[in-house]
Amino acid sequence: MLPMTTDVPRIQTVDILIEGSTITNIGENLPEEGVDVIIDAVGKVVLPGFINCHNHGAMSLFRGYSLDLRLMEWLSQKIWPAEERLDADAVYWGTMLAAAEMIKSGTTTFADMYFFMDEVAQAVKDSGMRAALCQGLLFIDDQGERRLQSAQKLFENWQGKADGRITTMVGPHAPHTCPPDKLKEVMDMARCFDCPIHIHLAETVEEVEHIFHHYGKSPVKYLYDLGMFEDHHCLLAHAVNVSRDDMYLLRGFRGGISHNPVSNQKLGCGVAPVVELRKMGITVALGTDGAGSASTLDMFEEIKATAWMQKNRAADPTAIKAYDVLRMATIEGAKALGLEQEVGTIEVGKRADLILVDVEKPHLYPRTDICALLAYSANGADVDTVIIHGQVVMEQRRLRCMDEKEVLRKAQRAACRVILGQQSEFPI
Amino acid sequence: MLPMTTDVPRIQTVDILIEGSTITNIGENLPEEGVDVIIDAVGKVVLPGFINCHNHGAMSLFRGYSLDLRLMEWLSQKIWPAEERLDADAVYWGTMLAAAEMIKSGTTTFADMYFFMDEVAQAVKDSGMRAALCQGLLFIDDQGERRLQSAQKLFENWQGKADGRITTMVGPHAPHTCPPDKLKEVMDMARCFDCPIHIHLAETVEEVEHIFHHYGKSPVKYLYDLGMFEDHHCLLAHAVNVSRDDMYLLRGFRGGISHNPVSNQKLGCGVAPVVELRKMGITVALGTDGAGSASTLDMFEEIKATAWMQKNRAADPTAIKAYDVLRMATIEGAKALGLEQEVGTIEVGKRADLILVDVEKPHLYPRTDICALLAYSANGADVDTVIIHGQVVMEQRRLRCMDEKEVLRKAQRAACRVILGQQSEFPI
Repeated sequence: MLPMTTDVPRIQTVDILIEGSTITNIGENLPEEGVDVIIDAVGKVVLPGFINCHNHGAMSLFRGYSLDLRLMEWLSQKIWPAEERLDADAVYWGTMLAAAEMIKSGTTTFADMYFFMDEVAQAVKDSGMRAALCQGLLFIDDQGERRLQSAQKLFENWQGKADGRITTMVGPHAPHTCPPDKLKEVMDMARCFDCPIHIHLAETVEEVEHIFHHYGKSPVKYLYDLGMFEDHHCLLAHAVNVSRDDMYLLRGFRGGISHNPVSNQKLGCGVAPVVELRKMGITVALGTDGAGSASTLDMFEEIKATAWMQKNRAADPTAIKAYDVLRMATIEGAKALGLEQEVGTIEVGKRADLILVDVEKPHLYPRTDICALLAYSANGADVDTVIIHGQVVMEQRRLRCMDEKEVLRKAQRAACRVILGQQSEFPI
Repeated sequence: MLPMTTDVPRIQTVDILIEGSTITNIGENLPEEGVDVIIDAVGKVVLPGFINCHNHGAMSLFRGYSLDLRLMEWLSQKIWPAEERLDADAVYWGTMLAAAEMIKSGTTTFADMYFFMDEVAQAVKDSGMRAALCQGLLFIDDQGERRLQSAQKLFENWQGKADGRITTMVGPHAPHTCPPDKLKEVMDMARCFDCPIHIHLAETVEEVEHIFHHYGKSPVKYLYDLGMFEDHHCLLAHAVNVSRDDMYLLRGFRGGISHNPVSNQKLGCGVAPVVELRKMGITVALGTDGAGSASTLDMFEEIKATAWMQKNRAADPTAIKAYDVLRMATIEGAKALGLEQEVGTIEVGKRADLILVDVEKPHLYPRTDICALLAYSANGADVDTVIIHGQVVMEQRRLRCMDEKEVLRKAQRAACRVILGQQSEFPI
């Protein structure tokens, strides 16, 4: 196993004992008496499950839909009209599709910001995943109050539910969709619930220009001046277009940044200064963003993209290392969500959220450096078995908590209804 | 199937008849009488096999080995000493490992430049792949003449062999490792053999500076002035650091560029101006480079990396489209190798080099746009069946022309011997 507990990689060949949802022993040749299930991990590497810190799960319904368009054209002509047609059923099956894909590529925990959050939470419960959920709070129309009420309901109905696998956050959408008075209200709500805040920040140049135009400062400074970084635990999605001044303002804030490199590239947002942010001691985790922009929810793709983009940005192959990006996908993700006491490493006392990666494959040979192979050569399909909260949710690539074929069929039907506005099929 | 024959994507549901190595009929409901083998492609998309235009197959032995180092440190302290210990057996098993990985991720043809080319050719013959091979020609020590003789031998022994699956090229390594008189000799050799030239070009800023320092011109102008682009068919690997002037000099040259985005990023070389090169009518194909730098030989990774990097470079999601990058991985690759009469599309009269991609998976749902799903969401593990030269070389992910376990074991042993200088195992 690669427990991700140390600052430098340390591979250990050990047994891991799980009782209930918890890792209770790690050691060589643990006794087999009284053990109900034994999983043979020969030829596999055991890792903490990946933590996807920024997702809009149900947007999996929009995967591949009009991808090669400019952001505003894509949003205004394609995504927003389709989102108008979203209903509870579509969000449930879209999130189940996302969960199926995430489990099959080694993700055990995800952060989600979307609508119809009751259905998202139900999908999390049904799929066996762990998630930190929030209602997206936008104040750009007359629905702001309704959304705040939904956020309240999400907290009341789901915080700590599904055996503790579900936590909730408060989700102001972004600086440019939340005026200052509403952000203060949202911050009060987060304080009252004792929940983290999940917000998009400095994703695009347009956002930065918009905030400068309206407030005469950068989006980071805008939130800083409102006091968001004083005591709140914050999960900041993107942070691509941040200046050196912005980075100084962010030093020491509680929580972390979700870096989402595939989505950033796809939308032409730029390359986040991950190396600099990490040098300042800021926690930088990884996320996929919704499959509508990222096209996959495979964290191995984000791991690779992070490494390649940062090495290329610095014109220096040493800028970031294999173990660094694996940490970003695991323990740094746990810190960004405030779940580092629960998950993110393989340790006695932590929840049993584990993945077994099958390394008996041509693209993972020879065995020169396991970290490099996992970070740079593996992909989601190499994940053989997934355990979440002590429960085996995938074994030998077969999902055990859902009927995969049913999920594909129902998601396809929902996508047709939402995108085409009818039950008909896409032309193929 | 997606035959890649048209300028815009066209999906057809048809039968494909293969006789011997050739596609002899395409149509709806072809008669089954007299057909020996029927492959059911329901739930799969049939594509032309991918063409990997730049590889050093046996460098798969160096996958994951000291990856997080600066280029010169990596080469001088790690790779070159290891390459000194290379032997015929290591190159054979390293190339077999590469072939196993390439077939399993949908590549049917590759271009290779390396040493011990007899063994590379033997591995191509044994694995069932198609390849365009060249001996790497460097003139930086007293071995230049020996290498030229090896190139001659490769042509004499292997051109057109393995049922025509092997073609040969002449492989001057790069402008900075080949002085002008030797390049002229090599060009004469290519003319005499009627073979394409395969050369690294403008990969790094250091190379550009070196050539400017010694010849007062860019690497492209250096080759241009030597007459390389007058009548030779050239395969130019990388072309990252090319100016607008360089691009004008390249207009109309025979052959194509192999863009290798993962390797370029990993080494911090920059982002090639693919969109601009394509706008000038220059053929831009895709390659992985050796697994020593790229870490995988999965062309789906290069397809994604190309799309994401070009969209981000242009800050415009429309800069390059899904079908464009799929073309680069297939028919543009065939053109770059001078094999467009043989492979690169699914057409009657062409060789049967086909891959069946299984799209019944969560990450390939919903079915909004098959091209987008194949280019942006699929990965090598989705390839179910591979046919090369009419022969089924992989069926339901089982390799039929080699013993996969033996290849892994022999490659591991060779890597230990070459890298560690002994038979011992890597610490794991």
